[in-house]
Parts: sequence; C-alpha cells; structure tokens
Amino acid sequence: MGDLKTEELLQEASRVTDRVRELQEEVAAAAGRRSGDEQSLRQRVSALDSILRHVSSLKARHAELDPKILEKIDEELYKVRCVLTEGDVAAILPSKAHGRFLKMFLGPVDVHVARKEEKLKIKEEYYRYRDRTAFLFLLFPSTLLVLRSWIWNGCFPALPVQLYQAWLLFLYTNLALRENILRANGSDIRPWWIYHHYCTMLMALVSLTWEIKGEPDCANKQRGVQLFLAWAILQGIAMLLQNRYQRQRLYTRIALGKAKRMDVVWGEAAGVEGQLWLLYPILFTLQGFEAYVGMLLLKTALVGVIPQWQVIVCGLLLIVMAVGNFVNTVQTLISKFRFKAKAKKLKSQA
Amino acid sequence: MGDLKTEELLQEASRVTDRVRELQEEVAAAAGRRSGDEQSLRQRVSALDSILRHVSSLKARHAELDPKILEKIDEELYKVRCVLTEGDVAAILPSKAHGRFLKMFLGPVDVHVARKEEKLKIKEEYYRYRDRTAFLFLLFPSTLLVLRSWIWNGCFPALPVQLYQAWLLFLYTNLALRENILRANGSDIRPWWIYHHYCTMLMALVSLTWEIKGEPDCANKQRGVQLFLAWAILQGIAMLLQNRYQRQRLYTRIALGKAKRMDVVWGEAAGVEGQLWLLYPILFTLQGFEAYVGMLLLKTALVGVIPQWQVIVCGLLLIVMAVGNFVNTVQTLISKFRFKAKAKKLKSQA
Repeated sequence: MGDLKTEELLQEASRVTDRVRELQEEVAAAAGRRSGDEQSLRQRVSALDSILRHVSSLKARHAELDPKILEKIDEELYKVRCVLTEGDVAAILPSKAHGRFLKMFLGPVDVHVARKEEKLKIKEEYYRYRDRTAFLFLLFPSTLLVLRSWIWNGCFPALPVQLYQAWLLFLYTNLALRENILRANGSDIRPWWIYHHYCTMLMALVSLTWEIKGEPDCANKQRGVQLFLAWAILQGIAMLLQNRYQRQRLYTRIALGKAKRMDVVWGEAAGVEGQLWLLYPILFTLQGFEAYVGMLLLKTALVGVIPQWQVIVCGLLLIVMAVGNFVNTVQTLISKFRFKAKAKKLKSQA
Repeated sequence: MGDLKTEELLQEASRVTDRVRELQEEVAAAAGRRSGDEQSLRQRVSALDSILRHVSSLKARHAELDPKILEKIDEELYKVRCVLTEGDVAAILPSKAHGRFLKMFLGPVDVHVARKEEKLKIKEEYYRYRDRTAFLFLLFPSTLLVLRSWIWNGCFPALPVQLYQAWLLFLYTNLALRENILRANGSDIRPWWIYHHYCTMLMALVSLTWEIKGEPDCANKQRGVQLFLAWAILQGIAMLLQNRYQRQRLYTRIALGKAKRMDVVWGEAAGVEGQLWLLYPILFTLQGFEAYVGMLLLKTALVGVIPQWQVIVCGLLLIVMAVGNFVNTVQTLISKFRFKAKAKKLKSQA
C-alpha cells in the first residue's frame, strides 16, 4: 500500500515536471512569434513615419498653394497621426521616454500601458482619487481653522498643522507621480499642471520646516499659517470644480469610445459647454486670490512680523503659481475656442 | 506647375492614409493572434497549477513516506515552481497584485515587467542607485558634523540640516517605491527591509518638523540632531557594505543567466562566501549601535533636555528598526546556512 502511494506520487510529480517543460517550450515559441510580428510591424510604422515627414516638409515648402487644398492635406495628416498615436498601433510602438521625475522616483521601470481600456482605467482612477482628495482638501484646513477659534483659543498647536502639511506633501507627490504616468501613456495634460504640482510639493515641504510658534501673540505669529490654510481651502474648491468638468469629458470619451478621435472631441465640447462659462470665471477669481495670499505672505515676512525664510519662499511660490495658472488657463481657453471654430467650419462643409 | 505639385501632394497624403489603415488592420490582427495564444497558454498554466496543488496535498497527507522519496518529490515540485515563477512562462501570467504602498503612490498602473532582461536591468539600476546614494549618505552627515565644529562654532544652523532631512525623506520614499517595484516583479526581497524603509521615511518626516534651536546652549539643545547624524553615518556604512555584497550576487546571476535557478544560487553562495564573514559581524555591530542611539535619544527627551515629541518618536523608531534588523539578519543567515547544507547534500548525491 505504502509502495503504491509512493509510486503514484512520484509519477504525478514527474508528470508535472514534463508538462511544465512542454509548456515552457510553447510559451517561448509564442513569444518568438510575437516579437517577430512586432518587429516587422514596427519597421512598417517607421517607414510610414518617414513618408509622413516627407509630405509635411513638401507641404511646408509650398505655402503658396490653395488654402483649401492645404487644409485638406492637413486633415489627412491629422487622421494618420491619430492612428499612429492611439489604439492598437500606438501599443506596439516603443514607449515614450519617461520624464526625469518618474525616473528619479521609480528608476527605469516601464509604466507604459499597452491596452486602451487600461489607459482609460488609469485615467478613471486618477479622477476618482482626485474626487476623494478634493473632499479632504476642503475638510482638513476648514477643520483646523474652525477648531482654532472654537477650542484652541486662536492659537494652533503645532502637531495637527504639521500632520496636515505632511499629508499635503504626500498628496502632491502622489498627484505628480500619477500625472507623469498619465503623460507617459499619451495623455495630453499640459506640462504646466505637473510643474504646478512640483511647486506645491516644494511648498508643502517648506511649510513642514516652518516653526509654528505659540503664545504669546499667536494671532500675529501664526498669520502665515492662517493664510496658508486659506489658500488650501481655495485649492480644494478649484479641484472640486475641475474634477466635475474633466470627469464629464472622460465619460463622454468612454461613451464615444469606438468613434474616431475628431468626433470624440466634438462630442465633448458639446456636452460641457454650459459648464465652461461657470468654471472659468471661478478659476480666474481663485487665481487672483492665490496671488493676493502670496503677496500677503511676502508682506508679513518683509515688515518683520514673521521674519522666516519659509514664509518668503511660500509667498513667492504662490505668486509664481498664480501667474502660471492664469497664463495656462487663458491658453487652454484660446485653443478651445479655436478648435470649436474649426469644428464648426468642418461640420458646415460636410 | 502649381497644379502638378498640388496633385502630387494630395496623392502622397492619401497614400499615407491608405497605408496607415492597412497597418492598423494588421496590427489588430496580430494583437488578436497574440491574445488567443496567451489565453490558451494561460489555461494550461492554471491546469498545471491545480495538478501541482494536488500533488502537494497528496504529499502532505502521506508524511509517513520514506524521507528520501519525499525529498525527491520536493525537488521536482521546486523545479516546476521555478519555471512557473521565472522566465517566459511567468511573463504571460497575470501580474501579481501590487502592494498597498505602490497603489497609494501610483494608482492602478502595472509596473510588472515581462522580459527577464528588463527585470535584471531594473535590479542593476537599483544597485547603481544605492551605490550613488550610499556615498552621499556618508558625505552629507559627515560634512554637517565637520562644519559644525570648524565653522559653525558647535551650533548647527537650521537650513542645512533641514535640507539634508528633506533629501533623506526623498531618498527613502524613492527606495521604498523601487523595492516595491522589484517585489512586484518577483524579487525575493524580505518584507522587513521594505518596512524598514517605511520607518525611515517616517523618521525623516518627523525630523523635518523637529525644531532646531540655536544659541544659547547649543550643545545640549542640539544633542538630538547630533545623534541623528551619527546614526545616518552608520546607515551609510551599512549600505556601502550591503551594496558590495549584493551587487556581486547579481553579477554572478547575470553571468550564469542562462543556467537553471538552482545552479545560479549555488554559484552565488560560492562566489561571496568569504565576504559574508566580514559583512555579518559589521552589520550586527551597527544594529547594536542603532539601538544605543535610539536609547540615547529617548534619554535626552525623558530627562527633559529636549522635551520634544519628535525626539521620542525618532528614538522609538530607531529601537524598533534595530530589533527588526537584527531578527531579520539572523533569519537570513539561518536560511543561507540551511540552503548551503542542502546544496552540498544534493551535490554529493549527483
């Protein structure tokens, strides 16, 4: 009986070994076929790319041609570029080089996602994350300010404020990493919004070293912290609004998932146009307030109430961010209007 | 002439469009073939996996069998598991779930690398990164301590120390992220070493909020900072030593790249055995010193010289890390000796 079991066991074990060897060979063969496929396709893509560049340069050398013809050629080239940068073809191309930021934090790992559905999933989860954090973004500084006047007698204790600042640092690092990953996956997020998060990371880090002095004369000594929290509440409001708008854009994209890119963008513009008229004035107001808070911080530091370098750096960063945000919001707005005008024209021609 | 150019251009443009459409279809077809291949292979892997589990449970139910036979079965099963977790077969399996840490920082992006060479590249770059930083790890705190007695008259200014602490926070976040990525890619790094980096991240963060008081009586008030820097120098030495040892292990692995896993581990153990006798006593000494620094910090905080919570937290963290490091180093050592004994036995049988 014991011998029978022994034999059975040994047989089973060696059967597994044989099977796994077979499997290994087949997997290796499949991998070989696949890399052969991909190599030949990649060669054809690069051949196509050079023709594309040839046509572009031909076009550039003949600016005297009929504008209608030129526009038609532009349209053709645009379609080709869409195919090359989206969907299955994009997936087999070697992934774009990562930014320095990702390389600095993650090393040489590839965060490029091949399948389109996965890309959308990452984007979806990014917005969901922003929704969750926008809520905390409003809650934390508001709670601190409320507790200050209700319980703490107008004087912040250091620990809760520092915990909040540590959370901010984590959050911004997180957002910067996720946005860099989105960008590596072909998202057309404007570089400024990522630089903006580098600025806020730096600000959170600097604010952590910011000594929070207590009694006596709290109100004056903690003026900087108070202004910082006011700015944070503003950021929370801006985030909530932007999330609402951008998620709606994404849902429209998913709904029109199978359509061509041009259609998708048309659909998008139509779906949320009403909200744009609400979003932009609020964004501009917030940017103005951001610059104002920055200047107040500088003033507090320079008239000598709180002569800490941290206050000066935070003030300067806020002003830089306000200006950058304003310039980029205006540029986005202009490109949206230009695109809409073009879309209308193309539609009326069709 | 103008008309000729126009026609030529339009023709070229539409030729590109046609070509890109063709290419898109072919790429889609290749993707379809590939996912078909992978699906059938995955099914076979999971069938194999269930047989493997069956054999394991059979073996467990018959512990009364001849130990030699049991060992032989173990060997077979080990080989199968090696094939399933390394190389081409591992690449087609759905990637392991990521740890919470990676998800927290990066979202749902897949950091799993399919090809074995890429895995080695990531590991190589990780060691290279550690080498670079180990050097800075020694340089920064030593410079601060030297400048303190030479230029700063025994009294640290806040900014350089805080810059150093911010660098530490960045570095540890970085290492924790990279190690989690290595682990997601099947590296057998012990979980403790990653937890250890979470502890050091926390410590760097806490030390940033640590108010660095100046004159008068610097020597006493800054005792905590001084101890912290002494610990950092120790860490630098430990890192340099471990790097030396682990890189050599990796090079052996690369050199034996095509060999089976068992051989690789044998080769490894043989190549660096001499260094182990140097590495471990030094590691144990450093761990003892780490606990000592932790207790000194606690003492400084508790006798009231620096009654800051930051000093207490850092002290406790250092003691926790020292104990954890010790336990894990001992465990690693024991498993190395066990493995060596087994390897010798298998060799003498062959």
